[in-house]
Amino acid sequence: MSDRERALEHYQPVAGNGLLHRRLFLAGGAAVVGAGSLGLLTARPARAQSPPGLPEWMRAPGAGMSGYGRRSRFEEHVQRYVGSAPGTTGSGSSRTPLEQLEGTITPNALHFERHHSGIPEIDPDQHRLLLHGLVERPLVFSMDALHRYPMVTRIQFIECSGNSRPNLSSEPPATTCGDIHGMVSCSEWTGIPLSVLLEEAGVDPQAQWLLCEGADAAAMSRSVPLAKAMDDTLIALYQNGESLRPAQGYPVRLFLPGYEGNISVKWLRRIKLTREPTMTRDETSKYTDLLPGGKSLIFTFPMGVKSVITSPSGGMAMQGPGLYQISGLAWSGSGSIRRVEVSADGGETWAEAALTEPLLSKALTRFRMAWRWNGGPALLMSRAVDDAGAVQPTRAALLTEKGSQVSYHNHAIQVWQVAADNQVTNAYA
Amino acid sequence: MSDRERALEHYQPVAGNGLLHRRLFLAGGAAVVGAGSLGLLTARPARAQSPPGLPEWMRAPGAGMSGYGRRSRFEEHVQRYVGSAPGTTGSGSSRTPLEQLEGTITPNALHFERHHSGIPEIDPDQHRLLLHGLVERPLVFSMDALHRYPMVTRIQFIECSGNSRPNLSSEPPATTCGDIHGMVSCSEWTGIPLSVLLEEAGVDPQAQWLLCEGADAAAMSRSVPLAKAMDDTLIALYQNGESLRPAQGYPVRLFLPGYEGNISVKWLRRIKLTREPTMTRDETSKYTDLLPGGKSLIFTFPMGVKSVITSPSGGMAMQGPGLYQISGLAWSGSGSIRRVEVSADGGETWAEAALTEPLLSKALTRFRMAWRWNGGPALLMSRAVDDAGAVQPTRAALLTEKGSQVSYHNHAIQVWQVAADNQVTNAYA
Repeated sequence: MSDRERALEHYQPVAGNGLLHRRLFLAGGAAVVGAGSLGLLTARPARAQSPPGLPEWMRAPGAGMSGYGRRSRFEEHVQRYVGSAPGTTGSGSSRTPLEQLEGTITPNALHFERHHSGIPEIDPDQHRLLLHGLVERPLVFSMDALHRYPMVTRIQFIECSGNSRPNLSSEPPATTCGDIHGMVSCSEWTGIPLSVLLEEAGVDPQAQWLLCEGADAAAMSRSVPLAKAMDDTLIALYQNGESLRPAQGYPVRLFLPGYEGNISVKWLRRIKLTREPTMTRDETSKYTDLLPGGKSLIFTFPMGVKSVITSPSGGMAMQGPGLYQISGLAWSGSGSIRRVEVSADGGETWAEAALTEPLLSKALTRFRMAWRWNGGPALLMSRAVDDAGAVQPTRAALLTEKGSQVSYHNHAIQVWQVAADNQVTNAYA
Repeated sequence: MSDRERALEHYQPVAGNGLLHRRLFLAGGAAVVGAGSLGLLTARPARAQSPPGLPEWMRAPGAGMSGYGRRSRFEEHVQRYVGSAPGTTGSGSSRTPLEQLEGTITPNALHFERHHSGIPEIDPDQHRLLLHGLVERPLVFSMDALHRYPMVTRIQFIECSGNSRPNLSSEPPATTCGDIHGMVSCSEWTGIPLSVLLEEAGVDPQAQWLLCEGADAAAMSRSVPLAKAMDDTLIALYQNGESLRPAQGYPVRLFLPGYEGNISVKWLRRIKLTREPTMTRDETSKYTDLLPGGKSLIFTFPMGVKSVITSPSGGMAMQGPGLYQISGLAWSGSGSIRRVEVSADGGETWAEAALTEPLLSKALTRFRMAWRWNGGPALLMSRAVDDAGAVQPTRAALLTEKGSQVSYHNHAIQVWQVAADNQVTNAYA
């Protein structure tokens, strides 16, 4: 096969409206042979005329080093979307600007927040974790003691069960990806398996649930099934290498991989083993799913299989016809992502996206696809499938199944409309 | 097998001086059955007497949300070790405080720095990347154009080839792990495969090397072999999810996985394809390896297989006899880590540590081991083996092989001495 034939095979569309094959992302130099000379893969850089002159920042020594670094002042517009409940300063949420990020790790400074009475400023030397209730030996752990136990490290996401609620309204809100879907973030978490501490305390055979309570002014509390506590639950102490941030539960939080974020209780101060769930405020009046018949589902823990294209996305402007990277995130509360399909024609045809490896369980997975935009109207969609075979539903299918009162667990497909005037907007289709 | 027998099997020492089997880190609750009642696995938390009173931070609403978050004021002592060259503010290095971190990701604010004339403050709208020399089509890329190309994401380390130089002195410096070994950091990097841009420019068959130049006042420059450029080299734009920090090359840097850090040119402005290496200042007068006979090795790119125990480590104090986690980092510039062994008796006996999965190529790998310290003297060591079978050498073996003039590429085994007075210090043994 000639270079030209190989290149044409690599860069021919694989689905409608300009989607190119994912192999572009999967190989090294071999995959792009011939693309340059054929003009198949280009964002149209300028031809160089002469070497550039010295910019001002090469004419004098730059800034010095520092103990704890900062980002560029040219990046300071990258901020979370903050929304406080009326009359409060610390109750509400801030959402990750997904459309301004790449890769899968969320910087700690941009991890979404959801607080019920603000962020407590906890002195770790004074903080204690109490483990009591149906145990043989009630125990109190200082932070120094906790740091001596065996730890594990995993890259996993947290998603608020109220994430993507704006897209449940009757008209598509004209806003950005992060403003709609930014209550999901992904970190490398390090902590002690809760099973280790439970074993040390000795679990009474009658215990089936754990009441977990935070040290914030709301004493945010949730009931956790014992089976999950003994499985992959962590007593998390570090996030992305450093100690937890105050907004994420400093000095210690519960972390239940794949479960709705509210149950991963921050500022953890107390775990009480019980026979039954405690039926706290935040699992009865909130965080339940009202069904069409008037009944509510309770303890709907795992987050559904989901994906969203982060670029191009709502509020962005295209730079005219030509090559673009379509980039997005996929995740499932039940395991790893098996496949993400992308459509540029509103779901008529689909092609498989490239997934960033390794495919980790309950982690954000970056997917990408090359797209040659012809400058005409396009409807961009992504659809994730997890390793259990669960498929992300359309918005229409989700509303049909869950009813019009649905308020949590919206994991429907997002549609971005690309118009001939270069504008990208939120759409229902 | 009874719970008691299973627990005893799990927690019996596997090497001298109290090292426990790694299976403790590898399983869920099943692995710890019986440990509590037998007192085999405990940092001796207090028995709880009564529920704790409400701390002050639960009595009033906490702080509000923010666009870009901060860490706790109780963590502000966690800082890089900064060392500027005499007479300069921006030339020198700052080192990651490895002993204060956990997991494998280094927070961007704590990534090590090595600058040759300070940190330039670059306006991304003005910055250009020139690709010229032995190419068919010289090209100039704006940052907007670069952001449209296909990207890949990988978790990989950078290590300065001068890392761990303090331990080449005749007496062991009485300092910390990060002060000695902190010129290694690990991030999730996202960028464009350099092969994609080279293919677009069209590589002249005579080209064998690339001159890569930074836009700092030193115009830091290195020669890169074409084969590496076409293999896994990235034009990196994002680090741990957000845009590169200025100290790490904002808005764009070269990234050569596994190679000595100096060659991953920051603030990248120019790539020129050449027949021969350019023999720049930083690959001739610096970053070469002086041999005993007076000759120097040049272009010694891959970093050797290496590991270091980060806790307990130099400058720390033990809290008395009992259970501890031994935790450390291992890496290889040639691939992934296959095995890390730990000794608590100065190398007489060794046991295999638990490795955090997945085992990624050219990434920091966290290893851990449980250790029941008896309160007596101990010499802690770790020894890494990579997937090519390369074994980390002792300090004595490295000096015998490389000679007394060795200044770069010190990947020798670190020894931490634990004394009966609880103090942990740097030692040669």
